[in-house]
Amino acid sequence: MAFDHLTGIANLSSEDILTILDTAKSFREVLDRPIKKVPALRGVTVCNAFFENSTRTRLSFELAEKRLSADTVNFSVSGSSVSKGETLRDTVQNIEAMKVDIVVIRHWASGAPEYLIRNLNAKVVNAGDGHHEHPTQALLDLYTIREKMGRIAGLKVAILGDIFHSRVARSNVLGLTKLGAEVTLVAPCTLMPPGIGNLGARVCHDLADGVRDADVIYVLRIQKERMNGGFLPSLREYAMTFGLGPEGIKTAKPEVLIMHPGPMNRGVEIQPELADGPQSVILEQVTNGVAVRMAVLFLVSGGTPPEPMTAGDMLMRPHPAGR
Amino acid sequence: MAFDHLTGIANLSSEDILTILDTAKSFREVLDRPIKKVPALRGVTVCNAFFENSTRTRLSFELAEKRLSADTVNFSVSGSSVSKGETLRDTVQNIEAMKVDIVVIRHWASGAPEYLIRNLNAKVVNAGDGHHEHPTQALLDLYTIREKMGRIAGLKVAILGDIFHSRVARSNVLGLTKLGAEVTLVAPCTLMPPGIGNLGARVCHDLADGVRDADVIYVLRIQKERMNGGFLPSLREYAMTFGLGPEGIKTAKPEVLIMHPGPMNRGVEIQPELADGPQSVILEQVTNGVAVRMAVLFLVSGGTPPEPMTAGDMLMRPHPAGR
Amino acid sequence: MAFDHLTGIANLSSEDILTILDTAKSFREVLDRPIKKVPALRGVTVCNAFFENSTRTRLSFELAEKRLSADTVNFSVSGSSVSKGETLRDTVQNIEAMKVDIVVIRHWASGAPEYLIRNLNAKVVNAGDGHHEHPTQALLDLYTIREKMGRIAGLKVAILGDIFHSRVARSNVLGLTKLGAEVTLVAPCTLMPPGIGNLGARVCHDLADGVRDADVIYVLRIQKERMNGGFLPSLREYAMTFGLGPEGIKTAKPEVLIMHPGPMNRGVEIQPELADGPQSVILEQVTNGVAVRMAVLFLVSGGTPPEPMTAGDMLMRPHPAGR
Repeated sequence: MAFDHLTGIANLSSEDILTILDTAKSFREVLDRPIKKVPALRGVTVCNAFFENSTRTRLSFELAEKRLSADTVNFSVSGSSVSKGETLRDTVQNIEAMKVDIVVIRHWASGAPEYLIRNLNAKVVNAGDGHHEHPTQALLDLYTIREKMGRIAGLKVAILGDIFHSRVARSNVLGLTKLGAEVTLVAPCTLMPPGIGNLGARVCHDLADGVRDADVIYVLRIQKERMNGGFLPSLREYAMTFGLGPEGIKTAKPEVLIMHPGPMNRGVEIQPELADGPQSVILEQVTNGVAVRMAVLFLVSGGTPPEPMTAGDMLMRPHPAGR
Repeated sequence: MAFDHLTGIANLSSEDILTILDTAKSFREVLDRPIKKVPALRGVTVCNAFFENSTRTRLSFELAEKRLSADTVNFSVSGSSVSKGETLRDTVQNIEAMKVDIVVIRHWASGAPEYLIRNLNAKVVNAGDGHHEHPTQALLDLYTIREKMGRIAGLKVAILGDIFHSRVARSNVLGLTKLGAEVTLVAPCTLMPPGIGNLGARVCHDLADGVRDADVIYVLRIQKERMNGGFLPSLREYAMTFGLGPEGIKTAKPEVLIMHPGPMNRGVEIQPELADGPQSVILEQVTNGVAVRMAVLFLVSGGTPPEPMTAGDMLMRPHPAGR
Repeated sequence: MAFDHLTGIANLSSEDILTILDTAKSFREVLDRPIKKVPALRGVTVCNAFFENSTRTRLSFELAEKRLSADTVNFSVSGSSVSKGETLRDTVQNIEAMKVDIVVIRHWASGAPEYLIRNLNAKVVNAGDGHHEHPTQALLDLYTIREKMGRIAGLKVAILGDIFHSRVARSNVLGLTKLGAEVTLVAPCTLMPPGIGNLGARVCHDLADGVRDADVIYVLRIQKERMNGGFLPSLREYAMTFGLGPEGIKTAKPEVLIMHPGPMNRGVEIQPELADGPQSVILEQVTNGVAVRMAVLFLVSGGTPPEPMTAGDMLMRPHPAGR
């Protein structure tokens, strides 16, 4: 397998996805070492270009890059030339001209990463574009599910909440169905985009029904700033009807996994009992996110995924300059 | 000795303090080398989480981390998930889940670092919390006094200015008295918190009397933004009565040290003649701050303080990849 | 040759300029390697102190520093002590006291870098000061012209646009004339500063006449925020009379180079046909900028410029810890 960019789950085959997850597994082990660093991308430069705020995604990518020994530079939209009337293409071509090898981009415009690929030689990794895709989030979710359940095919996964505004939901539906899971989308009508059923997921407007027999319930964030668009009468009403608490999971499988992409609004879309309970893998998602991003950066740089044994062993050798 | 976190001077024994100062001495020497870097924390990740602005403290920690060869990531409150309604605990647990080893936190809420320790496995270093403590500032001040005067026990130290709002004053009173100095707090009534005398310092409302026979005068910053709370009639009046100039130190010892934590309001709490005069050690405080922070980060990571000789020598060996 | 600081092209001899360009040539080759990194400044600390926003200049310096293996810290004016009433001198002396070796400064006040030199021991590199100079921009422009045309002496260079507000124009006029080029400044009267002719350039208010027989046309950015000062009736009128398009270069030499310091206002000062055309070297300017900044940082740190052979070869040896 070879891929040069990561713009979305839509463009990956199920084999591609599995290659990324397998590569991430090797890097996940690195994160448990006292010295969490490998020299795989030494001398490679990565620019994290964030045209939309995100603490956790930016930190996760930056940590992934540093643990691969890449050189990283950050730029965020505030204070950038973007406010000076420069086009996106010019901004990013300028970054590339500084001999940046990989551009990690988050942008409010759907399709921005694909647009860049047509205009750049650097590798492009999508860190979230508009309402379109957030592929590394879906990959870390798939990683976590596979790790916990041993497989993805045949699992019942309920995705709950603001499907309408969620690139996370879109990328997850694509990835889960490619790997053979059955996905149900659960949301009030106003938060369910028309035509979403075409992606291959069942659509449901009732919580108890939607999560019935679920192996995994994936709770989406309710963005409070979206609430004044007439999407919901009030947060309180949402919390009462679609917020997930101990009652809400009664129809699911007893060992159901509880997932959330963060940041959580505790007491709105999820109750603390579940967020902090034994079935929650929310913090494991975060840890796996670093490993998955290491894998993606490594693979787009031309790295070889780990073979049954020796090659992978070589790749993951500890950093030459020991502690 | 072993300590896992640094939340405040209140939790340190005098032996702990001396261990930190001795360790800092070794690192202080590193800072005078052409290559100011040791591999002590290679592969260790530090997150500087600043929920309150601070250029100099953030830079000082970041430089300390880089000179220990740690990997560092920064996040400041603007643009973070905090504005998205996430709890502090969730924000920091997420950072930790990315396999961060040490969280350096500055927060506007007193007690935030202790709260985090109860919810994290990562090491926590307090870079200033509310009106509570700023322990690394006090440690660098103690380092500077000991370096300059050869001892701390028995010295007379006057701390002058806005005691009421100052975590720097609190941490310094605690540290100085633990090491046997006599501390006098000098401020107008409105800037002196009730009950402060319980910390073991003398309280005085007259400048000439407060600094009498002082070996050290520690001038606090007057925060202009505090002046509209009825604490002071005007900056000009403050400068005339409590601002420190050549006249104001006449009752002190002739060789009195002049200290300030910065940033200075020249012409308000301190006159330029003193700030830039031969008795000022203000810039040395800044340099020592980097060494003290290197020592704290090293010790909370499980580093061994320098023994009489060989061990310390080992620890401070130059960076393996020479210039 | 030895120089400790870079404040402006005005202070450089033509030999100094050529030394920088020759040193940059060695570093330019490093940028085409798979591992774009040399250990030349290992253990050296650089602070990028930006008192004015600039994405591309800050990124270019930061990348230059990282590729020299320096440790870098950034601080920008928002959130700094500057807003707390501290003087510039105190702010930068504090940074220096943290044992920073080189301060790269961008400041809105003309002359800020020279002021700092008188108050610091650290090396100072000017990244743009007020309306005064932007020397690394001029050096990268000179590098690009020499690279493309094989020489600078005797070339005809037209600089077009907002000369009045442009430190880039000033630094380029100084550098180009020192190296023997003939410079023509082309702008409407309101954007031409009085007395600019003294710098040794011809002044012209007509586009066709100004670019006649030009080997190079250097298009300056029109800063939209300047337009409400009565300098121009409208952007549209400016674009029609002084905006450079295929028509505008008809009187120039057929192989004329098109340059721009970025960020571009496409459709205002330059038409896309030229910006993206075969004569444009705009992105090469950006790449060369990193190499030129590496050279400047290397030289102010006491690095030896490359000699005919072996020495330069040594200097540019690959990073010891290979990929």
